[in-house]
Amino acid sequence: MRHAYPFSALVGQDAMKRAMILTAVDPGIGGVLVLGDRGTGKSTAVRALAALLPPIEVVAGSPTNAAAPELQADWEAPGEALHEVPTPVVDLPLGATEDRVVGALDIERALSRGEKAFEPGLLARANRGYLYIDEVNLLEDHVVDLLLDVAQSGENVIEREGLSVRHDARFVLVGSGNPEEGELRPQLLDRFGLSVEVGSPTDVEERIEVIRRRVAFEADPAAFVSKWAPEDAVIRDGILAGRRALAGVDMPDAALRDCAELCLALGSDGLRGELTLARTARALAAYSGADRIEREHLRAVAPMALGHRLRRDPLDEAGSQARVGRAVDDVLA
Amino acid sequence: MRHAYPFSALVGQDAMKRAMILTAVDPGIGGVLVLGDRGTGKSTAVRALAALLPPIEVVAGSPTNAAAPELQADWEAPGEALHEVPTPVVDLPLGATEDRVVGALDIERALSRGEKAFEPGLLARANRGYLYIDEVNLLEDHVVDLLLDVAQSGENVIEREGLSVRHDARFVLVGSGNPEEGELRPQLLDRFGLSVEVGSPTDVEERIEVIRRRVAFEADPAAFVSKWAPEDAVIRDGILAGRRALAGVDMPDAALRDCAELCLALGSDGLRGELTLARTARALAAYSGADRIEREHLRAVAPMALGHRLRRDPLDEAGSQARVGRAVDDVLA
Amino acid sequence: MRHAYPFSALVGQDAMKRAMILTAVDPGIGGVLVLGDRGTGKSTAVRALAALLPPIEVVAGSPTNAAAPELQADWEAPGEALHEVPTPVVDLPLGATEDRVVGALDIERALSRGEKAFEPGLLARANRGYLYIDEVNLLEDHVVDLLLDVAQSGENVIEREGLSVRHDARFVLVGSGNPEEGELRPQLLDRFGLSVEVGSPTDVEERIEVIRRRVAFEADPAAFVSKWAPEDAVIRDGILAGRRALAGVDMPDAALRDCAELCLALGSDGLRGELTLARTARALAAYSGADRIEREHLRAVAPMALGHRLRRDPLDEAGSQARVGRAVDDVLA
Amino acid sequence: MRHAYPFSALVGQDAMKRAMILTAVDPGIGGVLVLGDRGTGKSTAVRALAALLPPIEVVAGSPTNAAAPELQADWEAPGEALHEVPTPVVDLPLGATEDRVVGALDIERALSRGEKAFEPGLLARANRGYLYIDEVNLLEDHVVDLLLDVAQSGENVIEREGLSVRHDARFVLVGSGNPEEGELRPQLLDRFGLSVEVGSPTDVEERIEVIRRRVAFEADPAAFVSKWAPEDAVIRDGILAGRRALAGVDMPDAALRDCAELCLALGSDGLRGELTLARTARALAAYSGADRIEREHLRAVAPMALGHRLRRDPLDEAGSQARVGRAVDDVLA
Amino acid sequence: MRHAYPFSALVGQDAMKRAMILTAVDPGIGGVLVLGDRGTGKSTAVRALAALLPPIEVVAGSPTNAAAPELQADWEAPGEALHEVPTPVVDLPLGATEDRVVGALDIERALSRGEKAFEPGLLARANRGYLYIDEVNLLEDHVVDLLLDVAQSGENVIEREGLSVRHDARFVLVGSGNPEEGELRPQLLDRFGLSVEVGSPTDVEERIEVIRRRVAFEADPAAFVSKWAPEDAVIRDGILAGRRALAGVDMPDAALRDCAELCLALGSDGLRGELTLARTARALAAYSGADRIEREHLRAVAPMALGHRLRRDPLDEAGSQARVGRAVDDVLA
Amino acid sequence: MRHAYPFSALVGQDAMKRAMILTAVDPGIGGVLVLGDRGTGKSTAVRALAALLPPIEVVAGSPTNAAAPELQADWEAPGEALHEVPTPVVDLPLGATEDRVVGALDIERALSRGEKAFEPGLLARANRGYLYIDEVNLLEDHVVDLLLDVAQSGENVIEREGLSVRHDARFVLVGSGNPEEGELRPQLLDRFGLSVEVGSPTDVEERIEVIRRRVAFEADPAAFVSKWAPEDAVIRDGILAGRRALAGVDMPDAALRDCAELCLALGSDGLRGELTLARTARALAAYSGADRIEREHLRAVAPMALGHRLRRDPLDEAGSQARVGRAVDDVLA
Repeated sequence: MRHAYPFSALVGQDAMKRAMILTAVDPGIGGVLVLGDRGTGKSTAVRALAALLPPIEVVAGSPTNAAAPELQADWEAPGEALHEVPTPVVDLPLGATEDRVVGALDIERALSRGEKAFEPGLLARANRGYLYIDEVNLLEDHVVDLLLDVAQSGENVIEREGLSVRHDARFVLVGSGNPEEGELRPQLLDRFGLSVEVGSPTDVEERIEVIRRRVAFEADPAAFVSKWAPEDAVIRDGILAGRRALAGVDMPDAALRDCAELCLALGSDGLRGELTLARTARALAAYSGADRIEREHLRAVAPMALGHRLRRDPLDEAGSQARVGRAVDDVLA
Repeated sequence: MRHAYPFSALVGQDAMKRAMILTAVDPGIGGVLVLGDRGTGKSTAVRALAALLPPIEVVAGSPTNAAAPELQADWEAPGEALHEVPTPVVDLPLGATEDRVVGALDIERALSRGEKAFEPGLLARANRGYLYIDEVNLLEDHVVDLLLDVAQSGENVIEREGLSVRHDARFVLVGSGNPEEGELRPQLLDRFGLSVEVGSPTDVEERIEVIRRRVAFEADPAAFVSKWAPEDAVIRDGILAGRRALAGVDMPDAALRDCAELCLALGSDGLRGELTLARTARALAAYSGADRIEREHLRAVAPMALGHRLRRDPLDEAGSQARVGRAVDDVLA
Repeated sequence: MRHAYPFSALVGQDAMKRAMILTAVDPGIGGVLVLGDRGTGKSTAVRALAALLPPIEVVAGSPTNAAAPELQADWEAPGEALHEVPTPVVDLPLGATEDRVVGALDIERALSRGEKAFEPGLLARANRGYLYIDEVNLLEDHVVDLLLDVAQSGENVIEREGLSVRHDARFVLVGSGNPEEGELRPQLLDRFGLSVEVGSPTDVEERIEVIRRRVAFEADPAAFVSKWAPEDAVIRDGILAGRRALAGVDMPDAALRDCAELCLALGSDGLRGELTLARTARALAAYSGADRIEREHLRAVAPMALGHRLRRDPLDEAGSQARVGRAVDDVLA
Repeated sequence: MRHAYPFSALVGQDAMKRAMILTAVDPGIGGVLVLGDRGTGKSTAVRALAALLPPIEVVAGSPTNAAAPELQADWEAPGEALHEVPTPVVDLPLGATEDRVVGALDIERALSRGEKAFEPGLLARANRGYLYIDEVNLLEDHVVDLLLDVAQSGENVIEREGLSVRHDARFVLVGSGNPEEGELRPQLLDRFGLSVEVGSPTDVEERIEVIRRRVAFEADPAAFVSKWAPEDAVIRDGILAGRRALAGVDMPDAALRDCAELCLALGSDGLRGELTLARTARALAAYSGADRIEREHLRAVAPMALGHRLRRDPLDEAGSQARVGRAVDDVLA
Repeated sequence: MRHAYPFSALVGQDAMKRAMILTAVDPGIGGVLVLGDRGTGKSTAVRALAALLPPIEVVAGSPTNAAAPELQADWEAPGEALHEVPTPVVDLPLGATEDRVVGALDIERALSRGEKAFEPGLLARANRGYLYIDEVNLLEDHVVDLLLDVAQSGENVIEREGLSVRHDARFVLVGSGNPEEGELRPQLLDRFGLSVEVGSPTDVEERIEVIRRRVAFEADPAAFVSKWAPEDAVIRDGILAGRRALAGVDMPDAALRDCAELCLALGSDGLRGELTLARTARALAAYSGADRIEREHLRAVAPMALGHRLRRDPLDEAGSQARVGRAVDDVLA
Repeated sequence: MRHAYPFSALVGQDAMKRAMILTAVDPGIGGVLVLGDRGTGKSTAVRALAALLPPIEVVAGSPTNAAAPELQADWEAPGEALHEVPTPVVDLPLGATEDRVVGALDIERALSRGEKAFEPGLLARANRGYLYIDEVNLLEDHVVDLLLDVAQSGENVIEREGLSVRHDARFVLVGSGNPEEGELRPQLLDRFGLSVEVGSPTDVEERIEVIRRRVAFEADPAAFVSKWAPEDAVIRDGILAGRRALAGVDMPDAALRDCAELCLALGSDGLRGELTLARTARALAAYSGADRIEREHLRAVAPMALGHRLRRDPLDEAGSQARVGRAVDDVLA
């Protein structure tokens, strides 16, 4: 078995790490879009976070990682024994066919023999874990759309010629992309919960630290993982505590007004912006041990909740994160 | 079972709600095209309206939601028992194949075994309900054309190589689209009965109210639905009463003249404009309890009946709704 | 059974109605191309004309509407009994495959079992009736070409890998199109017999009348159809009388000279223009009860026979109908 | 049986008629490309010429029109009886697949059962006759290339996966096209033997004559054909006499020098120009009863032999026929 | 059996003829690219050269023209008897599929029945002969690439899904193309051994001679071939003697230095230029009966070995042959 | 058996040879991208290096070149006997399908018979050797992506419809390309470990030497290989010693700082640059017998580790190697 790089040993990239932690606290926030340079550890971070989370219990042999026999899809071979597996991380390869992603339904066999002839796809394997898409901006729109639909509903429904097959598909979608190589349509951007920008560190010491840790990890993975285990545990405990606290966090009207005014000031289309902002702030409050949303929570998550929902403003050359920052300064002054 | 968001709890978006109510009163008005920003509750509204309507009685197991055994298509397995189901809402996914939409006919099996080998598609499932198409402007023209044909005739006929299969497909087509991302050809636009524009609310209180209600709904869906049930009942009763009253509403010549003059003033192509205007005004009269079409009814529905039927006027920078408004002011002064 | 809207109740659109009547008198004139606005009753008119014609006698069960057992194609199941059916009107849907249009020949079955395995297509069903193509300018060229070939020869021949299947396919092709949305190649335009332009009426009373009749028709179709039956009968009798008189109408040299000079003056390519003009004038003479072609007949049909055969003249901004009109005034002064 | 329009009753279009006659005398000249307006009788002329030629004797049932049992392809069902059929004219439809044109070879059946499973295509049916391609400029290059290959070699060879099937395919290729709608590559143009330009007649009497004859033909085809039979017989006799005389016509060095100097003066690429010119002049001499090529023969056929082999000269706005004419005047002065 | 036109009767085109002769002496030089006008006898020349060479002995029935039973591919039906056949010339048709070219491997049959189910393609038939590609610049790159690979290695290897089939495919590739109609990528150009330019002769006497010989050939092929047989024999003997002498021809350092300096002066990419130049000069020396490469040999073949390997020089408008000529004058002065 | 050209007999191209040697010492460095002129021996060099390496022991018949029965993939037919084979070099042909590259999985057979029906592809054959891709810039992105994924992970995993097949695929990817003919996306460039530029030698003596050696090799391959065997042995021994020493080479912080500062100075995206630089320098140290990375090692490999990771700088016209060189001079002064 391979060792995953420890989440806490990742140098810098705080926004990306925070976004991943918050969607681990409240997966309902929606997927995370990570924009920026190649070689900045995006894929490593997803694997690291999944490895940090406690293992999940699944019915042995269940292709959908069902947590209990009664949660298996009706087309699964029934199982009994439970065992623990790591939180799954599934990569969506460039050029994957739709069948490979959603699963393939053998209509002819189903009709002629009366069996449900379903071969589950990548979405089944991602259930209860993460689906990672590198260069999501190069996927075809209708595939991204389909993935976002499933991610949002938590269920993968395949309907073909009168047959219908379904299974749970609760996962956090993490998409990475370099905006210089093609953009997502605003319609799709808006359906990602959060977006963060990553870049290569500009500080020499930080860069040396990255190499040093990487070399140490490759030289002796087990020792390296042990060394960082305590820090990973802190984060894990925070996530688990946050999940429990989430429902009890108060969302005062003043906070909602802040959300609305911020979005109005930014002229963001639709209302997903403020809904996500409120929800993400609540997750941060829960993770931080606060019992209500404060302005500091809003300030901390506004750029990741709103940055990808701005209309392009040809007269404003600042990046979207900066524009959100200015609006935060104005509105939440 | 999931709770649908209550129709009456939708904040603002009056034109969209009115258009949906009126096509529920008289489905013969034709489909509704909802144009505008993402994240403004279009999909939620369709589901909400369908949930508000009384359940429909269907033959158990009928893939076309037949209301009685004698209304089943000849290729359906005959049923007997009736049971109640919610008004169906079917989503047409981006990238759906024609077979998936209209149903698949297995020619070989039909010819070799003499059986009608038909697997119904999404149009069968939408019978007696709603077909919702997000981003209808991204569908291929011949699919939109086919959907409009079926919606208009109320019947889905599949003819392949001498075989013919048919079933009822009476549904209201609701298409949404963002005109900034691609336009429908005028030929297709004209075949939608009504069009409405939606936008993000610009009023802070309204936006806060949206979040507040959404948060309340997510916190306790059942309680939220109960709270809004009385208001939903008012609308439901209005629709049911309107349906009964419809045939008896008078359409005086003066009203028809108003319709014609309005369309002439606007230079709209063809005559579908005034026919739809008259029919929609009649539905509004029926819903409002009036026994004849009055100018107020025409004024209220002219923008949604005519806005998508104007020729582009390069010298007139006003939006089409505004242009209809000005013509209404002139002609119905 | 649905009631068709009565032909004589159509308001205005005289050129379109005349062109349809004349091709009913002499189907050899060729197809009709109807150019212009959407929503002007083109599809309704075709159906109305077909409904006005007397029913045709067909061999029961014949997929080609054969008039007698000896006229059935050799691959048809032989029939005996005759019954009456309405004149068929077949719609060619956008995106129809070639197999669906011309019929599908199952080569493998034909070769292995020695049976002619042919499943007739839309062209078989259109025999002895009308084939209506909405937006003919959006079809692929080779399909239009094929349809025009069949329409002209009155026979559909399917040849595949040494097998040959044929059946009668005598129909009038009616194509509609909006020139603003794409043009037919001149090569194809020229093969339509007649063309007419339709537009929305500009007279208020006429528009009111359209709505009034439409509303009346929808309120009580049977009564409406009865009311217009006498006027429809006049047209039907004219057509039937015209068909009988056609062969006896004289075509004097002076009339032919008029045809040739008109085409020369217009610079129309090829000679189909004057041939069609002469033939259409003869049909009008027959329909009008005249025994020879007079200048008035030529004047009346020249725009529909020649309008689609002009070369574009960049210095002449008048429409093609107007250009034909001016030439008629000059040459037939 | 339908009557073909008589060849000699065609009004005008002398170059086209001459080119068709000369390729009937010596099919080795190669195909004819007819360029120009639609509606000028190109298709009619091919059919007329074929109908004028004496019927051919073929083995009954032979799909390749074999003249004797020993000339049948090895995959044909052997026949014995001979009967007469008209010279075949085959139309190549727009959009025909390669299988349909060259014939389809069922590899699987051939390999598994050891039978030659070949279904002949249009090229088989054209053997010993004419292949007519309307709008040849719209075919794909590799199809035109293939047709020209077969036409030149007189044999259709289908090789697929180690199997080889062949049959005679001696036909004259007649292609029509409107240069305004797309051009053939020079490489392909050069492989047609002759080219002629056709246009609508500009003389009123000639146009009237066209209509008058057409009307007469349609009114009573049999009588019309009888009337023109003597003139058709003159042409037929000329062709048959020419065929016999062809080999004996002298081609003096002076004539060859004329050919070479003409081509040099015109700067035509390659040497097919002068070879075709000499051969066509020889056919004309044979048809005219002359025993050697004279300058008059060269003058008469130079435009049709060379017109499509000129390089475009941007400084010379004259058409290619005119340019050939000037060169003829200069060189053969 | 058809007579091929005699190689020695070809008028002019010395470079093309020399290139063909030299690759017959040493096929290791690589393919020949013939650039230039259509109608200049390229295809005729390949056939003529093949016909001039002595027949080859092959195992009867061998689809790869194997010279002896032990040289047959393992998938061939074993043969015994040897017989003589002419040197094969295979044409690669425009639009040939890859299966048709390299052979088709029936995977399913191979796996299910354990047989090697291979149907050889055009490359098998070209073994020990010539592969002629007209308009090689219109082929897809990966096909040209594949052909050059096989030509270079002398072996055709088909690997599909774990199965591997191979056979000898030693042939000289002759490609023709008109640079005005599309260019080969430099990467592919470089892989042809030699290139020559052909053009229509500009001398009248030469052109007359072409026609005169062609006419004489067509009038009596057998007599014509007999007349030229002695001259063909001279060339054949030269080729056969050259083949024997090849290995013994000395390649002195001075000659290699000349090659290198010539390529450096021309700035040709890579080293294939000088390798080919040296090899071709050696073949010429062998054909000429010389025992070492002299400067005259280099001068004679430099244009055909280097002309297609120059980088385009926008400041030098001379053709590539002329540029090579100047460099030869400078370097080998 | 053919002789491979000896690696040590390659003239010049030191950077390419060094890069190949270093990836032989530490395959974890990743693939090598060779950019530059055609005809510079890229393909020859890969084959030469593979031939120089000691043969590998493989299970007889193993399609994945497994080193021992227990290392065979579970779908392989189990083997026992070991034998030695040369290090494999696999060419990826232009236009290869994905199935051919990764292997083909016969789903139907797998499901119906319960067998793993996998036919290994080129990646299986490349295990433990080299995969050479000529003109990698012409491959489709998703194929390059897939190849880089497999090369990095050392494992080829094929997942289709719920089935999963895997096998070792540890190879060094060597891609060649001419940047003038199309570029790789930066995202893909970055995933190659090293890049080198090759060009034609500009020194006459060097060029003569190339021809001289090539001629000598072709005249007597065995003798030539023997002559260079000792020099090849030196390189082989260096590689084998380097592999053993690799893990023990020290990577001092100062060296890591140099790496980071170099990358910062160059503004290269991401951190793969410095990681690769450090790793390659370590391989060079190991190959050179040093026990720690020195600046000389960094200087020597910086251009090949960083040259393809620079952002294009429109103001700096120097090539990327030169830009790296300047930065090396500045930072490691």
